Amino acid sequence: MPELRKDPITGRWVVVSTERRQRPMDFHFERATAIGRAHCPFCPGHESVTPPEVLAYRHNGSAPNGPGWDLRVVPNKFPALRVEGTLDRQGEGMFDRMTGIGAHEVIIETTDHDKTLSTMTELEIERVLWAFKDRVLDLKNDFRFRYILLFKNHGAAAGATLEHGHSQLIALPIVPDFVREEVEGAKRHFADKERCVFCDIIHQELAAGRRVVQENADIVAIAPYASRVPFETWLLPRAHASRYEEAPRHVFESLARMVKTVLTRIDRALESPPFNMIIHSSPLSEDTSPFFHWHVELMPRISRVAGFEWGSGFYINPTAPEEATEVLRAVKL
Amino acid sequence: MPELRKDPITGRWVVVSTERRQRPMDFHFERATAIGRAHCPFCPGHESVTPPEVLAYRHNGSAPNGPGWDLRVVPNKFPALRVEGTLDRQGEGMFDRMTGIGAHEVIIETTDHDKTLSTMTELEIERVLWAFKDRVLDLKNDFRFRYILLFKNHGAAAGATLEHGHSQLIALPIVPDFVREEVEGAKRHFADKERCVFCDIIHQELAAGRRVVQENADIVAIAPYASRVPFETWLLPRAHASRYEEAPRHVFESLARMVKTVLTRIDRALESPPFNMIIHSSPLSEDTSPFFHWHVELMPRISRVAGFEWGSGFYINPTAPEEATEVLRAVKL
Repeated sequence: MPELRKDPITGRWVVVSTERRQRPMDFHFERATAIGRAHCPFCPGHESVTPPEVLAYRHNGSAPNGPGWDLRVVPNKFPALRVEGTLDRQGEGMFDRMTGIGAHEVIIETTDHDKTLSTMTELEIERVLWAFKDRVLDLKNDFRFRYILLFKNHGAAAGATLEHGHSQLIALPIVPDFVREEVEGAKRHFADKERCVFCDIIHQELAAGRRVVQENADIVAIAPYASRVPFETWLLPRAHASRYEEAPRHVFESLARMVKTVLTRIDRALESPPFNMIIHSSPLSEDTSPFFHWHVELMPRISRVAGFEWGSGFYINPTAPEEATEVLRAVKL
Repeated sequence: MPELRKDPITGRWVVVSTERRQRPMDFHFERATAIGRAHCPFCPGHESVTPPEVLAYRHNGSAPNGPGWDLRVVPNKFPALRVEGTLDRQGEGMFDRMTGIGAHEVIIETTDHDKTLSTMTELEIERVLWAFKDRVLDLKNDFRFRYILLFKNHGAAAGATLEHGHSQLIALPIVPDFVREEVEGAKRHFADKERCVFCDIIHQELAAGRRVVQENADIVAIAPYASRVPFETWLLPRAHASRYEEAPRHVFESLARMVKTVLTRIDRALESPPFNMIIHSSPLSEDTSPFFHWHVELMPRISRVAGFEWGSGFYINPTAPEEATEVLRAVKL
């Protein structure tokens, strides 16, 4: 059974999930395996290889767990957390742990083995964003969960173990540290100024312009002032809102368009680098609505300098965000 | 000029150092270059290729910046921060920055191009630990600095760009976030219990035994209860002390022995993986002596699952520390 363990010094929770070691790679090696279409568990016709789907967008009334879908969501075959069981909290002397209750799902974004978020159509990307929303709305009903992580690892160097386009969802009985830090920071800013810090950033960046990669009706793409890695890009909704899953249809349309455009710029400027994408939205059972502002963070993985930063949380970024903005803006679409 | 920039949401400081891009790799590619002995700037006889040494342990009165040394410390040729200039703090609207004042040095650990911390003798490792101490004692006199980071990236996957054994030192005008979190956590524990949280951990772990990798007269090697990555190992001095640089001679002797033994265990169990090693010591101008406890953190980089954790600070560890301890203990030395 996986566990959540709390670091007694910092209070950080870590998932210790030994069952994941039964995955196709063991802990001794970093294998970059290209599985290929013939054995890809995410390609149409191979539905029986994955666990039964929890959501699928299908056409012509096709039956579950067979072909006829545009997008499928299935439980992760090697889950970091388990959905069955009760949330059991225990101590071990001074240490704290809880059972690793949670959901770990895979969003299979497309039937096409080779498509990526930059080569999919806007409608296809929008479908992925809707699937995120639908799964969050469903999982929110489970009161054991405090947070739902939506993220994507693209490319082996970013942690993807299968090349067929997919995102992941992890529902957790705790709020991860990096979300907690943002929420607390935003709360402090609001207490001080009665304004959302993200709204303030959008306002200042749009006025200055130097770090605005792209904007459309609803979304602004910004290279953050204190970017941690080269070409880090945040996609922020113009309208203040704390929860991704409550965004109206036109925001998802605009976000899909923005994801495609920004990733196309990144692909062309940097030769299709691996990247991590993560949605930061409000914790589930807290009202952060006045001060938190959901957004998408894109972190290309182009820098080998990442060695030390990983594990220390201290970042040395060799590319100024103003320079990254210039490079991305100069890309011909 | 490099800059330190503050994230307006979380308060995290980031080094934005565009000059580092003039390094042998540009930002487009992840090159794993093996430079080789003939062109290695750290090999004896090539002293003129590095900036002039700031410290060297030499024998027979040999002249600076030529052969005859056992260990050299030189400024990093591609520094993330600059030692010259004044510490200038500025605002840019709501954003905060300061000039990237700091020191960035390289500790060349040995004359032998192929030796590593696990194949060096205990005396050679002790020399490295003494060099760390000597440099910290010197740099502490510069009141612009609030923290001195001592770390090692071993192997290209851990961020090392040269294979010849070396560590690094970065002196900073701020306290990095990950140190701040530990210091604040330790302070809370002390306020609550009047005890050091690290001492409590050592006490409990030695009693339980399940996560004790190795111990000697002065140092205990533990797999932390909430390990972030497989085979994470902390080396803690038994005697409470907040500052690395104030440790007595016998502690450095014991630490050198422990570094060698633990790294040999890791090398044999995991086929010489890349790793990051970092010393956590007290911030310079704060008295943390009752509650902070310096230590060394070792993070092997064997897991490809690291993709997502990097940048989010949320860790999923596929190897329980109890299991890692068993594997490391079973290694025949």
